[in-house]
Amino acid sequence: MEIKKDYLNFAVGPVMMSDSLREMGAEPVPYFRTDDFSKLMLENEQILKELMDAPEDARSIFLTGSGTASMDAAVNNVFTPDDKLLIVNGGSFGHRFCQIAEAYHIPYDSICLEAGHTLRREDLEPYDGRDYTGFLINMNETSTGVLYNMLLVGEFCKKNNLLLVVDAISSFLSDELDMAQIGADVVLTGSQKALAVPPGVSMMVLSQRAVKRIESGHPMCYYLDLKAALKNQERGQTPFTPAVGILIQLNARLCQIAKDGLETERSRIRTVAEDFRRRIGKYPFRIVSQSLSNTVTPLSPINPQVSAYEIFRILKEEYGIIVCPNGGEMAETVFRVGHIGSLSVADNDRLFAALDDLMVRGILHF
Amino acid sequence: MEIKKDYLNFAVGPVMMSDSLREMGAEPVPYFRTDDFSKLMLENEQILKELMDAPEDARSIFLTGSGTASMDAAVNNVFTPDDKLLIVNGGSFGHRFCQIAEAYHIPYDSICLEAGHTLRREDLEPYDGRDYTGFLINMNETSTGVLYNMLLVGEFCKKNNLLLVVDAISSFLSDELDMAQIGADVVLTGSQKALAVPPGVSMMVLSQRAVKRIESGHPMCYYLDLKAALKNQERGQTPFTPAVGILIQLNARLCQIAKDGLETERSRIRTVAEDFRRRIGKYPFRIVSQSLSNTVTPLSPINPQVSAYEIFRILKEEYGIIVCPNGGEMAETVFRVGHIGSLSVADNDRLFAALDDLMVRGILHF
Repeated sequence: MEIKKDYLNFAVGPVMMSDSLREMGAEPVPYFRTDDFSKLMLENEQILKELMDAPEDARSIFLTGSGTASMDAAVNNVFTPDDKLLIVNGGSFGHRFCQIAEAYHIPYDSICLEAGHTLRREDLEPYDGRDYTGFLINMNETSTGVLYNMLLVGEFCKKNNLLLVVDAISSFLSDELDMAQIGADVVLTGSQKALAVPPGVSMMVLSQRAVKRIESGHPMCYYLDLKAALKNQERGQTPFTPAVGILIQLNARLCQIAKDGLETERSRIRTVAEDFRRRIGKYPFRIVSQSLSNTVTPLSPINPQVSAYEIFRILKEEYGIIVCPNGGEMAETVFRVGHIGSLSVADNDRLFAALDDLMVRGILHF
Repeated sequence: MEIKKDYLNFAVGPVMMSDSLREMGAEPVPYFRTDDFSKLMLENEQILKELMDAPEDARSIFLTGSGTASMDAAVNNVFTPDDKLLIVNGGSFGHRFCQIAEAYHIPYDSICLEAGHTLRREDLEPYDGRDYTGFLINMNETSTGVLYNMLLVGEFCKKNNLLLVVDAISSFLSDELDMAQIGADVVLTGSQKALAVPPGVSMMVLSQRAVKRIESGHPMCYYLDLKAALKNQERGQTPFTPAVGILIQLNARLCQIAKDGLETERSRIRTVAEDFRRRIGKYPFRIVSQSLSNTVTPLSPINPQVSAYEIFRILKEEYGIIVCPNGGEMAETVFRVGHIGSLSVADNDRLFAALDDLMVRGILHF
């Protein structure tokens, strides 16, 4: 069936691609057990490490799967049921880490935060000096757009000698992230967020401490066996047929960012986010996050009669604009506007013009 | 880095795509939590079932991952360590099923076949009337291009009341496959073989018996939880962000095959395979499979001085032609020529012209 694709897309992923990356999608997908592809994958590994400010002896690997594949793989390869994890659960992605730990019978406690609330020093205090071995956090809890203070988390983990797993799926490139500085052992991300290539690949950078854990452990899932992935990636290969086309697009994107400089890319995203936030104030929305990531702005209509889901639906169907609806309990009260991907201030103009029209039509009101 | 992509590609995956499918790769990847995308996924489910001749109450699901993700998911969701499996191990993909069973501590016996040999009735006899509960087979053992007799297997499984899992990754569309007739409970395949869209998605059709097992069980891998996949697919969705672009290309491909008729597609592949096999006889190769699939022809140089890997390398580097090298023990003795993807008899002409040239140059000889 035909499906409309040419939306102006403010989703948090898949996002809009640059013309050149999008057009690469029309190129043939080559056979991959070749020296050429190996070299490309080794280059991907090196650039990803650099962009994360990883220690020189860190490794990176690429999985064919959703971002959740890397969340799962990190937990099930680095930890065992003999560990005890502390998980920051501030929304649906924090909850997902809890579910993954449960799936592999790894004991955990969770720090449950109210929707939109950030993690404070006092939230960590009750867990200080106890018997945890690992700490899992979504750097940006994407469901409500809350960016956590990773320096605070890093300090807590160092003090308590915890292995730190950071889901940076929606923060990588948008927000400041220095893997060495925070002492993270695993930082993971996905292809379809700020990297802005199609969904289908997720990736992670691993510290030597994480690598050693993986190499001495027994993977709990055959497909997500990071020991095999590390072994293969030594020569720039993967154990199974990867999403070759996406990995080639990823290479072009990583090379471009390395060339332009990470700060150029981050500042581009920040400019779009700041423009949006400067202008949204006069509309009848409340920003529901205490601590915003550059990636996304979560909005709730001030008037409880106005449905967040209806705004998503009308923008999509009548204006050709995608914003990101929330699921579950927040479906009617929250939607999100992403700032990643190939978006500009001019695209914000189009969104604000549509919001103005919704105001005129009385669909949106105080 | 730049990587050459415009090979004439006889690999067994990724394969060459039609121009129209390839060009779809340049379209924007839309946001997917929409009614449109749900409808497309439900259409994918329905057509896949039809093409596999599945019972009407069968289900299909789509995973973002390599073909191995579906092999893994089928084993770990349908079976438990209380089962006992019989696995046909005729090469690297049969071996992979054994490794997956081991990873999840599911007891199994394997029927080890010599490379290139088919499965005969007498190979099954020692296992008749015993305590097995499941049977795993790669319909085409792709490493050596051996197509097994699925009617024989189906009959054995019915008689012994075994749940039958068929990896049809490289046989789907190329070879006759009637899920209802053979009584298979799971048939799985991947996007990058005869479906000829990019790698990154694998999929399976499940009988009601398999669905019931999945629904009453506990998944052993969070990411590959088929219970969650089935639940989400009821409304045409997936638990996690899928490879949206590839699923849209897959939809176009499935619709085209449904329109043209499966037999048209199969006969196109068979024509290319038969043309190749008619003409390869005069060259200094031995076909190493007792029972050929339409998908691929495995060849071994008759003269042990001639390296199979060197032929792969020279064809790639000097002629821009990709054939499929073998790995491991067979690297020097076997390579494979695939017949799936957008290939024609004229493409065979180009390959034979290159082989003629290798003969003239003395690189290939009796």
